[in-house]
Formats: sequence, structure tokens, C-alpha cells
Amino acid sequence: MSPRSSAREAARTRARIVRAAVDRASTLGLAGVTVRDLAVDLGMSKSGVVAPFASRGRLLETAFDSAVATFRAVVVEPALALPPGRDRLLALLDDWVDYLVDCPFPGGCFLTTASVELDNQAGPLRERTVAAVTRWLAFLADEAHAARPDLPADRARDLATTINGIAMSANQEIQLLADPAAGPRARRAMHAAVAAFAPEPAGTARARADRAGATRERPARPGGTA
Amino acid sequence: MSPRSSAREAARTRARIVRAAVDRASTLGLAGVTVRDLAVDLGMSKSGVVAPFASRGRLLETAFDSAVATFRAVVVEPALALPPGRDRLLALLDDWVDYLVDCPFPGGCFLTTASVELDNQAGPLRERTVAAVTRWLAFLADEAHAARPDLPADRARDLATTINGIAMSANQEIQLLADPAAGPRARRAMHAAVAAFAPEPAGTARARADRAGATRERPARPGGTA
Repeated sequence: MSPRSSAREAARTRARIVRAAVDRASTLGLAGVTVRDLAVDLGMSKSGVVAPFASRGRLLETAFDSAVATFRAVVVEPALALPPGRDRLLALLDDWVDYLVDCPFPGGCFLTTASVELDNQAGPLRERTVAAVTRWLAFLADEAHAARPDLPADRARDLATTINGIAMSANQEIQLLADPAAGPRARRAMHAAVAAFAPEPAGTARARADRAGATRERPARPGGTA
Repeated sequence: MSPRSSAREAARTRARIVRAAVDRASTLGLAGVTVRDLAVDLGMSKSGVVAPFASRGRLLETAFDSAVATFRAVVVEPALALPPGRDRLLALLDDWVDYLVDCPFPGGCFLTTASVELDNQAGPLRERTVAAVTRWLAFLADEAHAARPDLPADRARDLATTINGIAMSANQEIQLLADPAAGPRARRAMHAAVAAFAPEPAGTARARADRAGATRERPARPGGTA
């Protein structure tokens, strides 16, 4: 083999390993990905699986970055062709729901699985997950603010959590409940949130304070604490 | 020991084991709970941990049921003292957010962890998770309909997914990001959704169809598919 075709072959092998790791991680979580299983999946030796990455940890980090890049290519990039504003946000949300319904990863949203799995485990994978979720929520808040310029920044951030949550609930309804109505429902709910979110926070429930025994402290002005 | 005090002692031991299993499962997932770890946590023999339940599987099912009962006691029962309607729904949501912020389980919402972990694994634990999530979404839809009698049933179900999602996103912001604003933000977002949800679905994005290359099929009338 010429040096060039051998480098190409190495890159192809590397990509196959990453893909197999992403598929397994979306179903079992990153901690559930063993080098032995990947070797069986790929018909390779265990050392052949690890060698291109130096360690299992680096292989998992590469798989994580690859899954984020896939999400970006499928959900984010197409919407960025539009100018910031409501059409762009709604296009982004439609692509997101399509991605959840017809997911490139067999186990559904990779970041949801990773974040639930890793929220109590320190390490580079957790750091990557924190960074990805933080970046995503900030991006959604920016897009929400562009779509609804009448909303103050902190209300746009509330809307970002609402939209992110609808996607998480839809992912659960699709992956766990296999509910065929989950996709259209998520799309309707997201559109409703973008259309109807009010610039002022709704009044907080007074009922709680009225009930006997409701002694736990709660913020006097929830709108002022974010 | 008299037969009565020995039965009491057995019940107490059983409860301690279940509690230790719930704590571990909320952090590591149910699959991550080993009899060996529980034996170490409790200073018991491995056979002593399993004996009251006959098998590890039955122990995990008991732990699951116990976590659901805790959620019910902390979040649901107090609100049920009120008559159905908006005050009751908002009281329920406030208790839910309090539960997420100051969670009785060290790893955060037990059902979220279980549902992500088990969505691809057949078995009695997955069946229990499916049943619990299905019941919960139906209950939320009923409460949403009582709070907003102007909403048709399918729109109340959309609102249930919105509220459930805000709780899931808040759980992520609390457990993964350790964001102290997550609780007040979730409360505001839930109240906003209950107040502002419109009886008619918002128009679906036209932007997608306008973009060149948007050839994927989508429902002509999303409102009719739920």
C-alpha cells in the first residue's frame, strides 16, 4: 500500500470504530461501551480497536465529539442558512423533532443518555457533556430571543428550557413508550411555546401559601432570581 | 425475640435494603446496583441482602416501586387535597419543582434515570417504567384539562408533555449543571405554559417548505395526528 492509501485506510477504520462506539453508547450509555464488544461488532482484535485512539477513554471522548457533530450537522447547520428570527427557530425545532423521531443513533438522543449517565461521575466525558448542554441552552436562548425580540433575556432563557424540555419528553415518549404521536405532539407544543410565551412571568401560585402546613420557604419574587 | 418483634425487625431490614438500593439506583441506574455494593453499604452479607426478596431482580422491582411511592407521597398526595383546577395543578407543579431541587434521591429524578437506562432493555423493570410514565402523563393531561377547561383533550395532552419536559430539563440543569437558577426558572416556565397555552395549535412553520431541498414528508395537519 502507498503511504497515502494506507493513511486513508487508517482514517476509515478509525471512523468505523467511532461509529460503532456511538451506536452502542446511545443504547447503553458511554460506560456500557466495552472494547471487547466493539471488537466483536467490528471483527477486529481488542488492541486494533484501541490503538488508533491510544486509550478506551480517548476513544469514548472521540465518540462523544462525533455524536455532537452529527447533531450539529443534522439539526443546527440547515437552520443557520436562514437569518435569525422566528422562521429560523421554527425550522430548527422542526429539524430537531425529525431527528428525535428518526434518530441517527439507535438508542435516541445521545446527549440525554450521556447527561443522565454522567451527571454524578467526574471526568472528561462529564466535562464534555456539561459544556455541550450549556452551549446548547445558551444557543437556544439566543435563538428564542431573536424569534421573540419582545422577550427580555431571562424570559428567552425560560423559553429555551421549555423547548429543551419538550424535546427531552418527546425523546422519552419515542424511545420508552414508542408513541407514534410523540413527534407531531412535540412539534405542536414547541410551536405553541414560541407563539404564546408571555414577556411577563405568570403570577405564582397562591394556593400553596394558603394551605395549612405550607411552611417551606420559596422565593418572594421568582422573576428576580434568575 | 418474640415473633412480633422479629417480624418488625425483618420489615425494618427490608426497608433499609430497599432504601440503599433506591439511593444507588438514582445515581448509577438500576443496572448499576450490585448486591455486593449493597452488602458493603449496609454491613451485611450478600445472601442477607437478597434473602428478603428472593432475587436481585425482585429487590430492584421493590426499589422501583418504593421510589414511585416516595414521589407520589411528596409531589402528588399534597396537591390532591385541593379540588381539581388551576390552583391544584400549580400546587402540584410547585411541589414537583421543590422535589427536583431538593431531591430525596441523591442522583435526582429516579424515573428519568430509569427511563433513559431501560428504554432499550426488555424486562419487568422496563414494563414498570413504561407503566409509571404512561400513568404520569395521563394524570398530568387530566390535571391540565381541569386547570384549563377551555383546552380540548389533545391540547391538554400537549400541555402535559410541555410540563413534563420542563421538569426533565430542570432535572438536567440541577443534576448535571448544578445551576441554582434552575428551580425558579422551571417554576416560571411551568406557570407560563399553564397560563398561555392556546386552545388552537400555532401555525406550523412554513419556512421549511420554502427552503430548497426540504423534501422530507411531514404531516399536512399536525393537529389531526395526535
